[in-house]
Amino acid sequence: MTPRIDADRLWRRLMALAEIGALLAGGVNRQALSPAEIEAWRLVIAWGAEAGMEPSTDPAGNLFLTLPGRDRTLPPLVMGSHLDTQPTGGKFDGAFGVLAGLEAAQSLGATPARDVTVVGWMNEEGSRFAPGMMGSEAFAGVRSLDEILGARDAGGTSVAEALAALHAAFPDMPRRPLGFPIAFYLEPHIEQGPVLEQRGTPIGIVTGIQGKKTWEMVVGGEEGHAGTLDMADRRDALAAFARMADAMFREVGTIDPAIKFTIGMVRMEPNAPSVVPARLTFRIDLRHPNNAVLHAAGDRLEALAQAHAPPCTVRLKRLVDAPSNDFDADLRARIAVAAEALGHAATPILSAAGHDARHMAPLCPAAMIFIPCRDGVSHAEHEWAEPAHVAAGAAVLAEVAAGLVLEHAE
Amino acid sequence: MTPRIDADRLWRRLMALAEIGALLAGGVNRQALSPAEIEAWRLVIAWGAEAGMEPSTDPAGNLFLTLPGRDRTLPPLVMGSHLDTQPTGGKFDGAFGVLAGLEAAQSLGATPARDVTVVGWMNEEGSRFAPGMMGSEAFAGVRSLDEILGARDAGGTSVAEALAALHAAFPDMPRRPLGFPIAFYLEPHIEQGPVLEQRGTPIGIVTGIQGKKTWEMVVGGEEGHAGTLDMADRRDALAAFARMADAMFREVGTIDPAIKFTIGMVRMEPNAPSVVPARLTFRIDLRHPNNAVLHAAGDRLEALAQAHAPPCTVRLKRLVDAPSNDFDADLRARIAVAAEALGHAATPILSAAGHDARHMAPLCPAAMIFIPCRDGVSHAEHEWAEPAHVAAGAAVLAEVAAGLVLEHAE
Repeated sequence: MTPRIDADRLWRRLMALAEIGALLAGGVNRQALSPAEIEAWRLVIAWGAEAGMEPSTDPAGNLFLTLPGRDRTLPPLVMGSHLDTQPTGGKFDGAFGVLAGLEAAQSLGATPARDVTVVGWMNEEGSRFAPGMMGSEAFAGVRSLDEILGARDAGGTSVAEALAALHAAFPDMPRRPLGFPIAFYLEPHIEQGPVLEQRGTPIGIVTGIQGKKTWEMVVGGEEGHAGTLDMADRRDALAAFARMADAMFREVGTIDPAIKFTIGMVRMEPNAPSVVPARLTFRIDLRHPNNAVLHAAGDRLEALAQAHAPPCTVRLKRLVDAPSNDFDADLRARIAVAAEALGHAATPILSAAGHDARHMAPLCPAAMIFIPCRDGVSHAEHEWAEPAHVAAGAAVLAEVAAGLVLEHAE
Repeated sequence: MTPRIDADRLWRRLMALAEIGALLAGGVNRQALSPAEIEAWRLVIAWGAEAGMEPSTDPAGNLFLTLPGRDRTLPPLVMGSHLDTQPTGGKFDGAFGVLAGLEAAQSLGATPARDVTVVGWMNEEGSRFAPGMMGSEAFAGVRSLDEILGARDAGGTSVAEALAALHAAFPDMPRRPLGFPIAFYLEPHIEQGPVLEQRGTPIGIVTGIQGKKTWEMVVGGEEGHAGTLDMADRRDALAAFARMADAMFREVGTIDPAIKFTIGMVRMEPNAPSVVPARLTFRIDLRHPNNAVLHAAGDRLEALAQAHAPPCTVRLKRLVDAPSNDFDADLRARIAVAAEALGHAATPILSAAGHDARHMAPLCPAAMIFIPCRDGVSHAEHEWAEPAHVAAGAAVLAEVAAGLVLEHAE
């Protein structure tokens, strides 16, 4: 009953998918709802068709490829991840999860008891439209579809507009409702950290995802002439930002070895060399596995922003507030058994990065399988996973999937 | 022999010019070498034609309107300023100088002894293509035309490309060489500071321009995943920038009440919310009337950048290095006499802002006439000059011009 995955086919597909949005240094720029993502859909849909899988979508622009089961009234097993990347992303983040899911479904070798659905969640990365995980959050009802549809990219295009273009490219594709019942959810992914590589362990059994909070903060000052306005009379948005950011790095960035504190995006206005900055908008990303530490650090960040803003103002907008979570114990046990059966060493691991699986965990038994990535690097063009690890992760996924959908099919 | 300017005509022209690139809050966005600047050229050339003035240009995209004198072999009297604005600029910065020059030429009332030329220098502001004063620097040989032509705007368009489009819009316009001899240079301008307004004095006799240094600094780090990369392993370009900018504001921004220190432009890469920043490029603008203080403050800025960069790198590129200068004593005396003759109070004043006149001063006797602007504000949409002050500045300019080109014409 152990399925035999085709590791070469999976690798070839990973490399072919990476050609869509390919960058010069080996990476990929495939933004959510972009023409490149539409092209990626066409390719993945064609591969699904080879395996007898039917494409469908939903009002949030998620992609589903379904292998029909014997009893189609049962909720499906869902496997997958996302097809979008960071602006200078790699070949594996997201793509590995979708294509490993496809490989697991295609290699089942028998009609499953229930539908098996591969998913590509819309805009996991959040780099074109912020914040990310829009598809899984809309599906899980964590964020309203209206709010998501109104978000705009740097060029002023809304999610609603970009989504209409995506759906227009697939006019005959059936639509499913948001939040349909799911029996089990499995998400394979590269670790995006160095732990598995350092331990020489190809399989990570993810125990949970660390908590995450994000903010958009807007520092309001007043513009003026760089050569004439006295320093004492200035309300310089950049000067206030430098004070608060420096204090944040010193006080929160060092609060605990496990804290992760990032200001990844800054937009200044009018951003002209001889004009005192009138406004500076920035995004904060804060993570920690312990919810109490996360909460305290978040409060401190807000206090530092307020304390260092004068004579400017600061407006704080909380975006993401996701506590840490635990994945399903039974599925974690199944992953351990499957890894052992296939002869791959496995270890429990906490996910430092956020994943769509976070939003599936409240809906159904959910789990994640990690594989190592070189030097722990992701969100970068030189992100890399070894072919042997890609094959091991997909094989373990296929084994777990077979156990879930074939055991009652005898 | 005193010329009579038409103050209403000058005001109407200022308001009409402000319609080109007009913004909602009353300001103007008319970038160098843009379609809006081409439209402004057409309007100003038409007004010059009313006064019998002939348009010409040069390889740097400066605009000249010449009223022919009796002896055309003599170097001209040149008056003017610039037609470009900041992205959210006002109606007077630059435009007042060009249109007051036009009004002074048009109101001479007799054929001048030598040519009288009104100039609009290319890209004084430096907001689209940095750094600014490209036209006057190319004319004066301070910066090479090749270097200027290679500068690019945020969209990747080069000065060479934008200049070709400008010149193509005026195919029959005669070209003059860069650096042709000039007899006298006069530049009227709003003060861009509060001194004249506070003293209730409509005319400022500019003694000189404070020194200015600018830099482009590039902080180099390494990108990584915001949720997984340990703080201790990061080379975060934004964190390094926050350290150095905060130290610069604390140590250099307060070194002396007359210092002006601005970081007006910041560009971060990849600028995505969940990616540790790999690179941050920023511009520094530093000014002081005393060259020794300016030099010491500049050295300190460079040292702070180097000291706070690790574990990132920093690359320093010096752009502008312009010491303070003194304007011509005879022309300053003529301005004082003209203001007194016309009944306008006048006071000596240092220019805190840089002007194209800085680059004319080494070439010929040069001077500037300031008028007040409300609350000292410029480079902002609500920049404002009173009609009475606009008229007074133009009348003094016309009186001085008449004294220079009509006295030998009898």
